[in-house]
Amino acid sequence: MIVVMNVNVEEPKVEAVKDKLHQMGYKTHLIYGTARLVIGAIGQESSVAPTGIETMPGVEKVMRVMAPYKLVSREVKSDDSIIDVGGVEIGGNEIVVMAGPCAVESYEQISEIARGVQESGAQIMRGGAFKPRSSPYSFQGLEEEGLQYLAKVRSEVNLKFVTEVITPTDVELVSSYADIIQVGARNMQNYTLLRELGRSEKPVLLKRGYASTIEEWLMAAEYIMNEGNYQIILCERGIRTFENYTRNTLDISAVPIVKQLSHLPVIVDPSHSAGNWRLVSALSNAAIAAGADGILVEVHNLPDEALCDGAQSLTIENYQQMMEELKKVAVAVNRYLPLFSTKLE
Amino acid sequence: MIVVMNVNVEEPKVEAVKDKLHQMGYKTHLIYGTARLVIGAIGQESSVAPTGIETMPGVEKVMRVMAPYKLVSREVKSDDSIIDVGGVEIGGNEIVVMAGPCAVESYEQISEIARGVQESGAQIMRGGAFKPRSSPYSFQGLEEEGLQYLAKVRSEVNLKFVTEVITPTDVELVSSYADIIQVGARNMQNYTLLRELGRSEKPVLLKRGYASTIEEWLMAAEYIMNEGNYQIILCERGIRTFENYTRNTLDISAVPIVKQLSHLPVIVDPSHSAGNWRLVSALSNAAIAAGADGILVEVHNLPDEALCDGAQSLTIENYQQMMEELKKVAVAVNRYLPLFSTKLE
Amino acid sequence: MIVVMNVNVEEPKVEAVKDKLHQMGYKTHLIYGTARLVIGAIGQESSVAPTGIETMPGVEKVMRVMAPYKLVSREVKSDDSIIDVGGVEIGGNEIVVMAGPCAVESYEQISEIARGVQESGAQIMRGGAFKPRSSPYSFQGLEEEGLQYLAKVRSEVNLKFVTEVITPTDVELVSSYADIIQVGARNMQNYTLLRELGRSEKPVLLKRGYASTIEEWLMAAEYIMNEGNYQIILCERGIRTFENYTRNTLDISAVPIVKQLSHLPVIVDPSHSAGNWRLVSALSNAAIAAGADGILVEVHNLPDEALCDGAQSLTIENYQQMMEELKKVAVAVNRYLPLFSTKLE
Amino acid sequence: MIVVMNVNVEEPKVEAVKDKLHQMGYKTHLIYGTARLVIGAIGQESSVAPTGIETMPGVEKVMRVMAPYKLVSREVKSDDSIIDVGGVEIGGNEIVVMAGPCAVESYEQISEIARGVQESGAQIMRGGAFKPRSSPYSFQGLEEEGLQYLAKVRSEVNLKFVTEVITPTDVELVSSYADIIQVGARNMQNYTLLRELGRSEKPVLLKRGYASTIEEWLMAAEYIMNEGNYQIILCERGIRTFENYTRNTLDISAVPIVKQLSHLPVIVDPSHSAGNWRLVSALSNAAIAAGADGILVEVHNLPDEALCDGAQSLTIENYQQMMEELKKVAVAVNRYLPLFSTKLE
Repeated sequence: MIVVMNVNVEEPKVEAVKDKLHQMGYKTHLIYGTARLVIGAIGQESSVAPTGIETMPGVEKVMRVMAPYKLVSREVKSDDSIIDVGGVEIGGNEIVVMAGPCAVESYEQISEIARGVQESGAQIMRGGAFKPRSSPYSFQGLEEEGLQYLAKVRSEVNLKFVTEVITPTDVELVSSYADIIQVGARNMQNYTLLRELGRSEKPVLLKRGYASTIEEWLMAAEYIMNEGNYQIILCERGIRTFENYTRNTLDISAVPIVKQLSHLPVIVDPSHSAGNWRLVSALSNAAIAAGADGILVEVHNLPDEALCDGAQSLTIENYQQMMEELKKVAVAVNRYLPLFSTKLE
Repeated sequence: MIVVMNVNVEEPKVEAVKDKLHQMGYKTHLIYGTARLVIGAIGQESSVAPTGIETMPGVEKVMRVMAPYKLVSREVKSDDSIIDVGGVEIGGNEIVVMAGPCAVESYEQISEIARGVQESGAQIMRGGAFKPRSSPYSFQGLEEEGLQYLAKVRSEVNLKFVTEVITPTDVELVSSYADIIQVGARNMQNYTLLRELGRSEKPVLLKRGYASTIEEWLMAAEYIMNEGNYQIILCERGIRTFENYTRNTLDISAVPIVKQLSHLPVIVDPSHSAGNWRLVSALSNAAIAAGADGILVEVHNLPDEALCDGAQSLTIENYQQMMEELKKVAVAVNRYLPLFSTKLE
Repeated sequence: MIVVMNVNVEEPKVEAVKDKLHQMGYKTHLIYGTARLVIGAIGQESSVAPTGIETMPGVEKVMRVMAPYKLVSREVKSDDSIIDVGGVEIGGNEIVVMAGPCAVESYEQISEIARGVQESGAQIMRGGAFKPRSSPYSFQGLEEEGLQYLAKVRSEVNLKFVTEVITPTDVELVSSYADIIQVGARNMQNYTLLRELGRSEKPVLLKRGYASTIEEWLMAAEYIMNEGNYQIILCERGIRTFENYTRNTLDISAVPIVKQLSHLPVIVDPSHSAGNWRLVSALSNAAIAAGADGILVEVHNLPDEALCDGAQSLTIENYQQMMEELKKVAVAVNRYLPLFSTKLE
Repeated sequence: MIVVMNVNVEEPKVEAVKDKLHQMGYKTHLIYGTARLVIGAIGQESSVAPTGIETMPGVEKVMRVMAPYKLVSREVKSDDSIIDVGGVEIGGNEIVVMAGPCAVESYEQISEIARGVQESGAQIMRGGAFKPRSSPYSFQGLEEEGLQYLAKVRSEVNLKFVTEVITPTDVELVSSYADIIQVGARNMQNYTLLRELGRSEKPVLLKRGYASTIEEWLMAAEYIMNEGNYQIILCERGIRTFENYTRNTLDISAVPIVKQLSHLPVIVDPSHSAGNWRLVSALSNAAIAAGADGILVEVHNLPDEALCDGAQSLTIENYQQMMEELKKVAVAVNRYLPLFSTKLE
């Protein structure tokens, strides 16, 4: 930690800061610059924000040297983490595609979509049973009935499934059905939920909050890991900016950044970021080209009739077209999509 | 709802959209413009996003005519709502000051601060017992013990208290102690929590999410109201922008906007928006001058020792200085601070 | 400057960084922390970004200790600068009001508005003769004819005037008419223009770019000062954020921040930030309560007929109502509006 | 244009709005909804913002039906525009790579870099002779001397060059040397400059302002086209957001959006958006995968010694590695890089 003192700071103020740092367990090191005195605080820089220092008289600012996260950091674990979801490996050389509707609406709907996406190379189906909706008057999901439909379809087709949990008390129920439990963007800083998931044995798909920095996102993963669950898949899904042509602005740079900072796999949700199905194929291509380990994409058999987010859902036919191109992009960056790899060789 | 069709749209696509709108219960009205056909959909515009229409072939965009919220709207209730908190009225002519530490740390701490702020004109003390922290390694609050300290101090001084709840299962516990229950910025879209609070009998202080639009904020209030709890106090606390000199950017315009759109009272938290105690007095003045019904401000007896957010906490002495000026600003806009109003006359 | 090295950095990389810093004229000071080596670089930290260091092998990040601006800084000049505009002092105890239309449309228009605002306490009229418009099909201003109308009205009423210049070659022309030359938000980083204004003898009103940080804004002022013109008035006019209820988000915190960092006066433009005349009075109150030295406000005799920005223009009558309240807010913070001060005593 | 009236609006207010619209040349069409009256205004919706209407009594809001740009729109010209730069086609099937240093520093520097990038498949070299810098103390460019070095190197290697112009009076000078004239992000709304370039015969590379919406960017292109110059290449280079891990947030979605809205070619600058050379290869891949027609990338022979933006510059060696992968991504989306296409077949 570096403490920058005010110009012409008086000696007693410097002594007070040094004393405080010593109490906190730091050694101090003074650097007298041409304009300012800077104090280097040496020791195990705590992840706790050093709130006491910046308010002390004579202190201009405090700069952190170390990142606040540990367990998720590539410094702690230099090789890539690969999450095994019943045989599907996420974070390895294979690109993972998770596809399906925003919300589970009926057995027939999820069954038809699952069969459609499975044919074109998805390994995992998605579908919400508990839906966080910005309006209390919107469809809120089928809840456990939806989970049952997902489980039934899983037993019929060769797909795992991911579904969202929105409150800590539902973690046990959702865990008993799902292969991967999703934390939505709005819940990325729901710490009670994160801690509960940290005690679960199921892999967690952690979406980035739509106004969260990459550091905050990694800190949310740290919450889960700190309770003992190391199976985390990060998911970039767009951030809120002034541009409103898209629903959110896909932060494509987050993909290579997370790969540098952390050992965790990262996937991209092009559907929520765009809010418009016409952009989904281009953004999926971009995601894989930038190094993402997979995509999470909305597909619906009847987008016009969807109970949520129809505007951003691909039809099954459009999904299949997208996959044809995506397999070629994957190969260009030395990755592959499973179904197609055999065709290619 | 207004549906804008593509240039040179074919007749069958127009018919399909009309049919769909009729199925949804709308009457349709066609306007043939010089470049485009526009369809006006007449009927009770639902708050549910009209997902089916924008994906239909030939549709360029869909524009809403009505706001998605109802119960919170000034159109539904034209006079100001005044929330009564055990005799303290929020939203009336009197400015309400809620002051205290970020977190309750001990009985002695909250007691000393409460006495300090009460002397200078606060009606309500604040203090967190359950703390949502971005790091799992930070102090997470004293939980029920903290609530007990707050309740004990309340019985000793003439102050009500507001404290945060962070998960639905704690609502009953927190309600049993607090006078006002706070929903923090990170939980503004925690819908399970909002619904639980909608079934509580205690007033709710609803902070704006740091990346939430005013419309989303009002929709969060609508969630609470829709369950039957009409006692809501809105709290602007800064939004996330590119400017990082402050922790958040106080959206002062939100104050007069909310007053126009809604009948609910609105207060301002200058401490969290600034993240720096040196700005708090200026921002408090601005809040009241812009029409806010009160402020929520962090005060600590020993900011250098605070377990959270010391950098943005006023000392008791600085708080008292701030209040001296604030009382004059209140009078300038025909409001008053209770303690001082007698002195003024 | 602080250089943070990678974990387990090799000695030759450290030597290379030290050598480079020595070449740049710095002394170096090494601090061996528990996890990382940090190099303190001591010397006159240049305002030039130290581009060479952060790309060197083994360097994790570089942190600046000093602000990049000098002349505008309060460290260089601790007392407030007061700009004298033909007897009107900006930055002193008196609040300065600049009022008038977005664009000069005719002699009759500017004359009527000038008389209206002068009656209620403005010291300076505003009106654009050269208009930067986002559409090439919008009204672009009367150019020199507009300047002539402003000059004619000035000779008839007791008001100075401020008007915008949008290209360097017009600086001489505009200077020959105007009392204050305005740099618009879109030109805040038009460095050729800034340098030209630095060689002018007229005071400059420097609007903050709508996506500029406070530091960039002060650097723009530094450009002007660096050429020798010290008469600068800063103007906060809202920044671009995700919230689109307002045209821009007024960054009210910028007012006290600029007052801390710089000796220059700062005023607020509530009209452009809001984009809606209904918010202007509340925001003007907030500006003065937060410590601004004045406001720049759009007033039009016939807002419905205005050739630009009618939606954010006050009528003369609404302006007069606003001023009635504003004078009271000014007094509350120990400032005054000139016309009214005599009435108050 | 759609005019939404207030709830329970009185008849005379409706009549006044209708009269005003008729004066403006619109026909009106009334739709009486269940809650509100909506007026459809039919006619050639002008690009001029309809300022008069939204301030009229009884009007709640005005919604535009048509985009404000025309000439750049795909509705006006449905096939892709291909810009011919002395034989290099931009916007066709071939991916165009523009590479070189931030600033021209010497003949030797630009010569070495040009040869390095030419070998690995660039068609166009970049290098700034006039530099807009946020600090007046930073290197401002070699000006005409820099243009001369670029022209000399062009005559020696098989590359065209693009360079920036920052003020209208330099357009003639820069046009006499350059193959493409660049408008930087800070000048995207420098309308005097845009108009001057509209009268030039050289192609214009128009960077998106770092806080400009896609619509504003297209409007800036419209300014140039409106003066008669149709040779415009759009360049996405990142937007300003709350995330500060990168210098700007690359808005990758802008690529497919611009392709839908406009017939103009669009390229991506991964260097300025990232601000960090380690991200450049991943972002270049993403750009081409998303449909961009090329990239503009910073390359320096000695990044540690660069006079500007060294942190984001690739070495020549890193550039060559990037190109190896990029050629495969191009092929995956049915495009090609010229040098490599022969090798591939």
